[in-house]
Amino acid sequence: MSLQVAQIGERALIAALGEIFGEVQNLKEQKNLLFGIGDDGAVLAPSELATVATMDLAVEDVHFRTDWSTAHQIGAKVAVANIADIYAMGGEPHSLLVGISLTGKEEVEWVLDLARGIAEQAKKVGAQVIGGDTVRGEKITIAITALGNTSEPIYRSGAKVGDQLVISGLPGASAAGLALLKADKKDLFPEIVKTHLQPAVDGKKAHALISAGATAMCDLSDGLLVDVSRISEASGVGIKIYLDHLDLSSLVEVSKILAVDPISWVLTSGEEHLFIATLPASATLPVGALKIGEVINGSGIEINGEISDSLKGVGNTPREWQHFEK
Amino acid sequence: MSLQVAQIGERALIAALGEIFGEVQNLKEQKNLLFGIGDDGAVLAPSELATVATMDLAVEDVHFRTDWSTAHQIGAKVAVANIADIYAMGGEPHSLLVGISLTGKEEVEWVLDLARGIAEQAKKVGAQVIGGDTVRGEKITIAITALGNTSEPIYRSGAKVGDQLVISGLPGASAAGLALLKADKKDLFPEIVKTHLQPAVDGKKAHALISAGATAMCDLSDGLLVDVSRISEASGVGIKIYLDHLDLSSLVEVSKILAVDPISWVLTSGEEHLFIATLPASATLPVGALKIGEVINGSGIEINGEISDSLKGVGNTPREWQHFEK
Repeated sequence: MSLQVAQIGERALIAALGEIFGEVQNLKEQKNLLFGIGDDGAVLAPSELATVATMDLAVEDVHFRTDWSTAHQIGAKVAVANIADIYAMGGEPHSLLVGISLTGKEEVEWVLDLARGIAEQAKKVGAQVIGGDTVRGEKITIAITALGNTSEPIYRSGAKVGDQLVISGLPGASAAGLALLKADKKDLFPEIVKTHLQPAVDGKKAHALISAGATAMCDLSDGLLVDVSRISEASGVGIKIYLDHLDLSSLVEVSKILAVDPISWVLTSGEEHLFIATLPASATLPVGALKIGEVINGSGIEINGEISDSLKGVGNTPREWQHFEK
Repeated sequence: MSLQVAQIGERALIAALGEIFGEVQNLKEQKNLLFGIGDDGAVLAPSELATVATMDLAVEDVHFRTDWSTAHQIGAKVAVANIADIYAMGGEPHSLLVGISLTGKEEVEWVLDLARGIAEQAKKVGAQVIGGDTVRGEKITIAITALGNTSEPIYRSGAKVGDQLVISGLPGASAAGLALLKADKKDLFPEIVKTHLQPAVDGKKAHALISAGATAMCDLSDGLLVDVSRISEASGVGIKIYLDHLDLSSLVEVSKILAVDPISWVLTSGEEHLFIATLPASATLPVGALKIGEVINGSGIEINGEISDSLKGVGNTPREWQHFEK
């Protein structure tokens, strides 16, 4: 099927998207949805729980490249980023709104595959696509709003002096995967590249950190230094990060080939959607979680006992700035 | 102030946006917001009412032009489109999530003005901006999700045979305004042009239709023919539209200058966010509302007793198709 979006038009496209998203609706016994796609808005039943709401935008050639990623991967990645935010707030995702801007030249099948990537991730976490918008634009842009329930939100601001800094797994593979793609060496380490193109989110890891008593939590979306800095700022505490003890063996081989210090990937790799939390000193770490530091009096972050000059300012969000700097 | 977004970076931009949106938060005694901007997601308190959720995307040069509209007008227009959808569902808007894609070359002041346009409309209806995302992209794109409460949602699907078709005011001025802009004659009828650039939404008009017993409702976003067709389809009924009795005097002068039949504007003008509803035959029309037809057995829409050939297929959403056709 090589029809383009402009050939079938918005009406037919929306109908096809509705089928893909609607399939999820039917498969699931989602009792909270009173009305989904097909009116001015979706309607969700009242809930005794608080609602978590988040929005993420992803733009072609900034957040994804159609020559690197399949449509399915792109859809899944944007959905995962939103879903991870809901988990990071201590919530359970239940609904997605999906806005897509298309040039009209995309093959219909490509767009449906994008939708399938979104729908698959939604289904995996028990959520569904309840509405959205499709419009024309010069670059493919995807906006997703995720909604979830929470009985007790976890904020970035709850870290206490003495808490342990914990992460749900070793970060770095997403940055390593991106470096491989940029160096045109993606075939050498397909699993690492996949971490970048097709990141997963595991809500059970967020649940485990909450069960362990998480005082503050966020997902790893902009890199360890940036995200830990945000906890430090929001909580009004200092945070020491220890990394010497980490087993970096999964990154060593690829780091040698690309001549990069793997620790820089650990510190700056984003979009992996691991969960970073602070836990009381007495808490037992969940299986697989790594202690990487502790909360101290003061402000800012220290790495391995001192702020390395080369890393100074990294906490001041260089990755964020990249969004606008050329 | 002529600083560009890329010069101050995302962090400073988000802080400035947060101040504009936060001002609304402070001014309002919004009891349902537990946490707004500044974490992985916003948190809304449980509500005894159902939630209406909607998303709209607007793309530079497709939905707005920066040489025609001020940033304030653009922000306001996208916000209004979302807010109108909430009202059209029988809801009360309370929260907006705002995603903005920027090139980085925009003047910071322009972006803040955009935010002020959104914040002003939010404030007007008792809503607030609770979160969002800012990213880089080649074209300015704005994604807004609006959330609202409703005790009784009004769907498009409730129209009953015998109902009156009613609209909250005379449509057409938005299309006329757009035609004036395209013809470079905007200074001739500034008020009409303003309807296009700066549409208003009046929730009280939706409330009045609901009080009058609305069985189905939507807002006028894609033009009378398209929007009435949707009610007809969703309700499984036919709809007759009568327009002969309408007072078109507000459109006559401009239609002569542009040599356009004003009735074509009435039928196709969108983005005006008037409300179209079906009311029981016995219902008294709200002040200012116009009866423009009735619900009949069958399917599809008839205009003035017959389906005009020149209008055939118009109900098949030509405006929608424009989104993707060149």
